[in-house]
Amino acid sequence: MTEIGIGIVGGGYMGKAHSVAMAAVGAVFDTALRPRLEMICASSDASAERYRQSFGFARATSDWRALVADDRVGAVIIATPQKLHREIAEAAFALGKPVMCEKPMGASLADAEAMVKAAEGHVNMVGYNYVRTPATQFARQLLAEGAIGDITWFRAENTEDFLADPDAPATWRTEGMANGCIGDLAPHIFNAALALMGPISKVMAEVETVHHDRPGGKVTNDDHVQMMCRFESGVMGHIYSSRVCTGRKMGYAYEIAGTKGAIRFDQEDQNAIWLYRREGPEATQGFTKILTGPAHPDFEPFCQGPGHGTGYQDQIIIEAKDFLTAIETGQPVWPTFADGLAVARVVDAALRSSQSGTWQDVN
Amino acid sequence: MTEIGIGIVGGGYMGKAHSVAMAAVGAVFDTALRPRLEMICASSDASAERYRQSFGFARATSDWRALVADDRVGAVIIATPQKLHREIAEAAFALGKPVMCEKPMGASLADAEAMVKAAEGHVNMVGYNYVRTPATQFARQLLAEGAIGDITWFRAENTEDFLADPDAPATWRTEGMANGCIGDLAPHIFNAALALMGPISKVMAEVETVHHDRPGGKVTNDDHVQMMCRFESGVMGHIYSSRVCTGRKMGYAYEIAGTKGAIRFDQEDQNAIWLYRREGPEATQGFTKILTGPAHPDFEPFCQGPGHGTGYQDQIIIEAKDFLTAIETGQPVWPTFADGLAVARVVDAALRSSQSGTWQDVN
Amino acid sequence: MTEIGIGIVGGGYMGKAHSVAMAAVGAVFDTALRPRLEMICASSDASAERYRQSFGFARATSDWRALVADDRVGAVIIATPQKLHREIAEAAFALGKPVMCEKPMGASLADAEAMVKAAEGHVNMVGYNYVRTPATQFARQLLAEGAIGDITWFRAENTEDFLADPDAPATWRTEGMANGCIGDLAPHIFNAALALMGPISKVMAEVETVHHDRPGGKVTNDDHVQMMCRFESGVMGHIYSSRVCTGRKMGYAYEIAGTKGAIRFDQEDQNAIWLYRREGPEATQGFTKILTGPAHPDFEPFCQGPGHGTGYQDQIIIEAKDFLTAIETGQPVWPTFADGLAVARVVDAALRSSQSGTWQDVN
Amino acid sequence: MTEIGIGIVGGGYMGKAHSVAMAAVGAVFDTALRPRLEMICASSDASAERYRQSFGFARATSDWRALVADDRVGAVIIATPQKLHREIAEAAFALGKPVMCEKPMGASLADAEAMVKAAEGHVNMVGYNYVRTPATQFARQLLAEGAIGDITWFRAENTEDFLADPDAPATWRTEGMANGCIGDLAPHIFNAALALMGPISKVMAEVETVHHDRPGGKVTNDDHVQMMCRFESGVMGHIYSSRVCTGRKMGYAYEIAGTKGAIRFDQEDQNAIWLYRREGPEATQGFTKILTGPAHPDFEPFCQGPGHGTGYQDQIIIEAKDFLTAIETGQPVWPTFADGLAVARVVDAALRSSQSGTWQDVN
Repeated sequence: MTEIGIGIVGGGYMGKAHSVAMAAVGAVFDTALRPRLEMICASSDASAERYRQSFGFARATSDWRALVADDRVGAVIIATPQKLHREIAEAAFALGKPVMCEKPMGASLADAEAMVKAAEGHVNMVGYNYVRTPATQFARQLLAEGAIGDITWFRAENTEDFLADPDAPATWRTEGMANGCIGDLAPHIFNAALALMGPISKVMAEVETVHHDRPGGKVTNDDHVQMMCRFESGVMGHIYSSRVCTGRKMGYAYEIAGTKGAIRFDQEDQNAIWLYRREGPEATQGFTKILTGPAHPDFEPFCQGPGHGTGYQDQIIIEAKDFLTAIETGQPVWPTFADGLAVARVVDAALRSSQSGTWQDVN
Repeated sequence: MTEIGIGIVGGGYMGKAHSVAMAAVGAVFDTALRPRLEMICASSDASAERYRQSFGFARATSDWRALVADDRVGAVIIATPQKLHREIAEAAFALGKPVMCEKPMGASLADAEAMVKAAEGHVNMVGYNYVRTPATQFARQLLAEGAIGDITWFRAENTEDFLADPDAPATWRTEGMANGCIGDLAPHIFNAALALMGPISKVMAEVETVHHDRPGGKVTNDDHVQMMCRFESGVMGHIYSSRVCTGRKMGYAYEIAGTKGAIRFDQEDQNAIWLYRREGPEATQGFTKILTGPAHPDFEPFCQGPGHGTGYQDQIIIEAKDFLTAIETGQPVWPTFADGLAVARVVDAALRSSQSGTWQDVN
Repeated sequence: MTEIGIGIVGGGYMGKAHSVAMAAVGAVFDTALRPRLEMICASSDASAERYRQSFGFARATSDWRALVADDRVGAVIIATPQKLHREIAEAAFALGKPVMCEKPMGASLADAEAMVKAAEGHVNMVGYNYVRTPATQFARQLLAEGAIGDITWFRAENTEDFLADPDAPATWRTEGMANGCIGDLAPHIFNAALALMGPISKVMAEVETVHHDRPGGKVTNDDHVQMMCRFESGVMGHIYSSRVCTGRKMGYAYEIAGTKGAIRFDQEDQNAIWLYRREGPEATQGFTKILTGPAHPDFEPFCQGPGHGTGYQDQIIIEAKDFLTAIETGQPVWPTFADGLAVARVVDAALRSSQSGTWQDVN
Repeated sequence: MTEIGIGIVGGGYMGKAHSVAMAAVGAVFDTALRPRLEMICASSDASAERYRQSFGFARATSDWRALVADDRVGAVIIATPQKLHREIAEAAFALGKPVMCEKPMGASLADAEAMVKAAEGHVNMVGYNYVRTPATQFARQLLAEGAIGDITWFRAENTEDFLADPDAPATWRTEGMANGCIGDLAPHIFNAALALMGPISKVMAEVETVHHDRPGGKVTNDDHVQMMCRFESGVMGHIYSSRVCTGRKMGYAYEIAGTKGAIRFDQEDQNAIWLYRREGPEATQGFTKILTGPAHPDFEPFCQGPGHGTGYQDQIIIEAKDFLTAIETGQPVWPTFADGLAVARVVDAALRSSQSGTWQDVN
């Protein structure tokens, strides 16, 4: 058993989630490589120190360059605003250090492209954590095995309602493309689409702001986006994402129909996945509600009992395990920076399509 | 209490459903006007006589003109293949007789337009029965009352799987636009969209055949269709319809998000409608599963008890009641032929859009 | 095709339901024997005439003896208060006429015993309609086939909330054992238990009034009842019934566990039945939500399409079909008066057990 | 921020869960008192060392007395077989050390009584973790506030199927009362009943072995248990627990009806709780599916986003937080040893009742 010092840049929502994950992952998965909470970086010395104490790091800094360069920091997790992703990642890779970067990767398509180039030859991973639920990992496995035959239709959504109230005030979330629905929320479900179905060849999208004015200011980014898409496999699909979808809290959902069966999932009940198989007597056919358990990917080490249930934090711990495995073996673990770039290209095509009102190729 | 002789043209699936409905509606709704099963028409004398006996009509014929012209037939129900709709309706209206015509209305947009013209001044109704569930009637009522605020998103589908098996043989269903998904299945959900949301201004559609060859022949119509749409109200929407959607039996479903709430419905559980309202403490907000009962439209006369449940046939009985009311009052009851034409125009725009790959106005 | 005149005694809730059923059943099931709505009986001439017109009967009377004796009445349906069941049934059987009697059968165990004796050699049937849903008929079929192995546990409930409000006034429903939960509501689910699991050998019950005083008077019957029971097969079970179970509208539900699988049903979604089978890979095991359709008992003639859905009235129509079949063939169709008596014996044992606080044998 | 050394006796299923929880809890809840994984004890030196490495403890031992007596161990968690609970707890309390003991507490009623006595004046807690889901904590809060009025009915179950297969071999689980359903599984749901409803005054129970012989040996404990119960509040209830309930994985479920509303919960979907309130128009009444989120107890610090979902491990982390709070404040946190004893008394009454076939008081 060897140890590696972890440095996390950013102490907010995801910085905390990764800190908890690194504290727990060794015991959960009995990893060969063990993380040590070495250094946390935040925007000021005071907040960095606060995060250090709260999350249990050895040291704190307000200078991400110091963190990246530190000898005791063996791997870097980037949990900052998007505009800093590229610079930090490039600095870490320049020193040969493994990097896990939060999604979506970089603040622009150019950033994402540069990051993939910089990552060449280094361990890299992008933080699309939702796809790591045992349910979605199992869905991918079913699809790979051909359990539902040839796919004929794909529909997915990532819908939440945190800005559904038109009277919710303008904040940083309502400014800048990167913080809008297409920049921040939709990438999650684009990534799921790619993970489940393979590459998208072209899209026809609408990116729209529903509430242009909010108390405190103008809204300068979008509230929801829909797109019809065509996968390289030839399959027709539709994806919707919204931050104003009243009633939806974690509408990370997909429905996949095939010639021999179908799969349905909605992350609002993340421990269930629904499988239909057109086989056996018609009288007993239907969607089977499968509760994830020890028979499903990455479930047992964590929860042990069927029906015990995984939660959001568990996905981050699975992610931490995969990052450690990547570091240990030197083999990239999906989703890599290249996968993050693929998402960025879908975002770019969707924006082009929405502006032109025409179908646009994904590069 | 007065009586009216009912003549039904067509003894198949829907001919039977209307016959049962006319036999039962008087007792269920205690209608002032009472239907008498006067005459049934089918393609041959033998089958007409068989239907007469089975359904309980007084007389039978294989000549629809004789049925329409018969003095004891006071109202005509058209349950034939689409290509006969127009001619029969025109003949009945020429004699001033009320007509209920099965959906979709006519075999072409031109037919539908001609039928609306012929219907002028006469009682007319088109058989979109699904919208008559107490649940969907209640949804319309909630929307009309503004219960969920301003609408921001609409998604609907009509998905079944009766041709999901690629080895299902070619039949009349796999030939001719009118029998395809866009011609036969999608109109149901287009009608629901119009009923719930008002007129559609433009669409961007894909109409696609998934399985081109089936045992016994080529497939000459489409298997599924999706479209992004824009309502005249400005709301963005998406509609999908499929006959190859494995696992779906009665996927007549919609989700409507508004600024103050949301509505969800899936006809596979036709006695439940889900309502979310953004009000009261956040800790108690959620989708409420409302079981339709006496408090909802048209439920009580039929089933009396809450939770007792309505079924498919009940919708046809409600439809029969509304047709009788229209006859009695001389007032059209929704959906009229004009509503049927509105659906036909959406179908037409969808076909144009799919061929051109561009947005198309509805008219 | 021959015809039979139907006489219905009682024009209330169930009188109407049976009238509608008899009007529709011929067309739905293409029955060989066709019912004719011959005569309706109610407590006064005026109400009888009103029902006659509303339901479409040929004649009306306020004298049930006249109805039973009438030459044109070939079969009698008893939909009166329980205290009249016995006398009417005995009179009809004395004339050799088939009888369908509403549940629960008779006003006492003695009534039920006498009615079984009187029914000997005659067509007889008792109106436990809920068990006729395609879902529950399918459950019986699955159990008969051993689809879930040896049964190890049975739980059922019939829960509604029509008296859940303590401020709901005292009415005839709150007076007399026969109108209480044990007398009126629980028999439905006792019948289901017997139908699904076979005879019950002993029970340990609690029969309780929750709200003793209501506006307008004292409550003299029970609000809810629970009982542990032991089936003759040796299986352990539990049954609960309530009229004060807030939130439940049609909680006619059961869960049956076996060595090889399990079945779950709740009539609030009457078109779905859930089946678990312990077979195949563990990773794909789960409860399958089966939507009833043409592959299930008695579904196709009525609704034809899978997922189209049956409702409460449909059960009564299936019942009407079975009654006609019994008349035509002279063979009893389940549930017969003997089955109705079996339910009465469970009620009796439950009352004895609740009074004594001890286990009581059924019989 | 101060630190406390944690010693855990037992490295199996629950030993691991507590280790992970103690590693993560500080970061999740930003606790004032911080746990240090000081020492782990297992049955052999080898296994203890293995757990030490895997879970990340500083030291290992095979002598629980050494662990308890160790100066650097400030608090003890007992995760051993039940028969050791008492002795370890007494030793720890004798040294004034706080103890969290796994459920069910002790191997007998006498053990539980002795443990409560020993715990007097010391921080003590028993590991009924399921009640710590945000959903169940919220249910308790709703009940305390009277949100559903006066309770009229309580039903609960803890049903799993890990021994549903009659061919599953005999193991330690099939030997000894403490490992049977009444000894091991049922206490979870008895504890929930007490937590939600208050004390139980008497029970009428059946404790039964379904499969007496298994490959490899005789079964000497029970497979399932049901009991009718009467709460001190006067409310009637029923509880069922089973390890042979095919299809159920985490059937930790309850339904509570009150005069003004109802609550339903099933831990197989642990992030949803269903609330019915009899208020407002009847047409909009129904069970509301509430997804737990930041508005519910103990949710936000862990998961932050609504709908993000908690899992089994999260309950243990909440438990760890509560244990640390108890240590820090010196105030007991529910459930204490006294609560554990209350459960043991229900178990005892159920066993007495099952043997005698009569109602038995709970002490």
